[in-house]
This record gives sequence, structure tokens and C-alpha cells, in this order.
Amino acid sequence: MNTEIRETNATMTDESYMLQAIHQAREAARHGDVPVGAVLVNPTSGEILAVSHNTRERDKNVAGHAELNVIQEASKIVKDWRLSDCTLYVTLEPCPMCAGAIMAARIPRVVCASKDPVAGAMGSVWSLHSHPVHKEIPDVTFGCCEKEATQMLKDFFADRRQG
Amino acid sequence: MNTEIRETNATMTDESYMLQAIHQAREAARHGDVPVGAVLVNPTSGEILAVSHNTRERDKNVAGHAELNVIQEASKIVKDWRLSDCTLYVTLEPCPMCAGAIMAARIPRVVCASKDPVAGAMGSVWSLHSHPVHKEIPDVTFGCCEKEATQMLKDFFADRRQG
Repeated sequence: MNTEIRETNATMTDESYMLQAIHQAREAARHGDVPVGAVLVNPTSGEILAVSHNTRERDKNVAGHAELNVIQEASKIVKDWRLSDCTLYVTLEPCPMCAGAIMAARIPRVVCASKDPVAGAMGSVWSLHSHPVHKEIPDVTFGCCEKEATQMLKDFFADRRQG
Repeated sequence: MNTEIRETNATMTDESYMLQAIHQAREAARHGDVPVGAVLVNPTSGEILAVSHNTRERDKNVAGHAELNVIQEASKIVKDWRLSDCTLYVTLEPCPMCAGAIMAARIPRVVCASKDPVAGAMGSVWSLHSHPVHKEIPDVTFGCCEKEATQMLKDFFADRRQG
């Protein structure tokens, strides 16, 4: 167990799901995509509805971000585009496209590992989720497994600069 | 030809593409989706790469907006997620998800019919496209075939209230 002072309100359960998202992110790097992974969970049952990773480069599809992949996969399972009883775990703060999809799908809780100061749309560059136009504002937690996720991104870009 | 004073810088060519987007929007209404249509064009060749409409309700897929549908379809054709030589015609101002995808795909020109005061992310509620974080800001034109597109949306919601 990690005994250092935690600067996040993520729980141990959150960490176990985020470790699966990090595992997914590593899969993305294997095919040359920026390592970002996501897991979509029903927090009541504990069931994992979908796991995925960034496939934008592999599939030449701008919508192939980890978050949109799990959202679409989960919607097929629950046969609804509304995912209002799900928690999304993602290794990097969502971009505007994914934050927009998260809000549209009415996902009430998002747990992120790293912030994205370049394109983060849930607090860093934009705060799409907390605009007064929304009736319900999702709970957004940062810092769950942040070190691992940030190091993975650093390693990926360092390798790419050398490659 | 419409001789009234035009409050848009859309061209006659723009109008011909937008009429096809409006035709697409009507298809959406036929299966109970909010009538929004889109057409993605290579403005140099005049080639239409993709046409689509809102399929969110039909396919139970939050990403099934007209803009994301044409972007993904066109990417399959050009085998690239970058669509930096395309113009997007859409009957309603893009939402945050679609505006995010448009920016990510580097689409340099967007022509819209109606503004969306509820969820518009290219000027109405948000201005995702003009944030200083972007190296290139797309040209966004409003008001092309606005009357037809707005009336179509009004009719759809009026029918739904009565239904």
C-alpha cells in the first residue's frame, strides 16, 4: 500500500481500475499511439463494461481516443447512449472531443491520472464539464496513479524523439 | 436566387452543399433523431467525401452526430485522420464533442446554417475553435440556409411536443 501523503481523493478501488487503464495505455504505445487508456465501470456492481486505448493513429480515426472507444463499446452493451450510472477511468485528462462526449453521455464521475496542460478540457485548458449550461456537473478526480501515467507518457515521447 | 440582404458570407456554392446537408437532416428526423445533417467536401476538387446525419438515437451511440459521422467516413476514404483540406457543412452549430473532433481533424473551414444557443461550441456557448492554444483557427461561417435549417428544427420539436 502506498503510504505517502495522497493529493487525490481517489480510493483504492479507483486505483485498481486505473491500473487496468494504464495496462490499456501500454497497448496503445505498442502500435504507435500516444499511450492513453480508459476503463468504464458500473460502480454499483463493480462490473467493467469496456476497456480500450487510444487507436487514432492505428485506425486513422480522429474519434479513436480511449474515452470515446469505451463509451461507444459500453453503449452497445447497455443499448443506450446515456451512461448515467457509470464511472470513467482514464489515464490522461480528456480532450474537448472526449469531454464533450462524456457530458453528452451524462457520465457522472470521471477519474483521471494525469492532467493535460496542452489539451485538457476538464480543468486544465477548458472546463467544459463545469459550465453553467449543464444541469448536472460530473465529479472529476485527478491524481489517481498519476506518477505511473505521467512517466509512461514521458517515456513514449522521449522514445519518439530518439526514434 | 435569393435577393434579400444576406447576413452571411456563404457563397452560392456553399448553399448548394448546405442544401444537401439539409436533405440529410430530414433523413435524421425520419428515425426520430434531431434533424441535423452534414456534408464534408474537398473545396479544391468540389468532391463530396461524405454525407451523413444525426444517428444518435437510432444507433444508441453518443458519437453518432452528423459531423462525427462524416469525419469518420471521410477519414476511411482518405486514410488519414487529418482532414486539413476539407470544408464541413453542417445544419447546426457543432456541440463540444464535434467541435473538438473538427479541431483535432484540423478542418480549416466550417459552414453552419443555424447557431445553437444551448450547446453550440463554435461561438454560441463555447468558442472552442478560437482558443489561443490552437495554432490555426478555422474559418467559421454562419447563416448559410439558416431559415430552412431553423424551421426544420422548430417543426421537429413542435411535432415531438404534440406526439
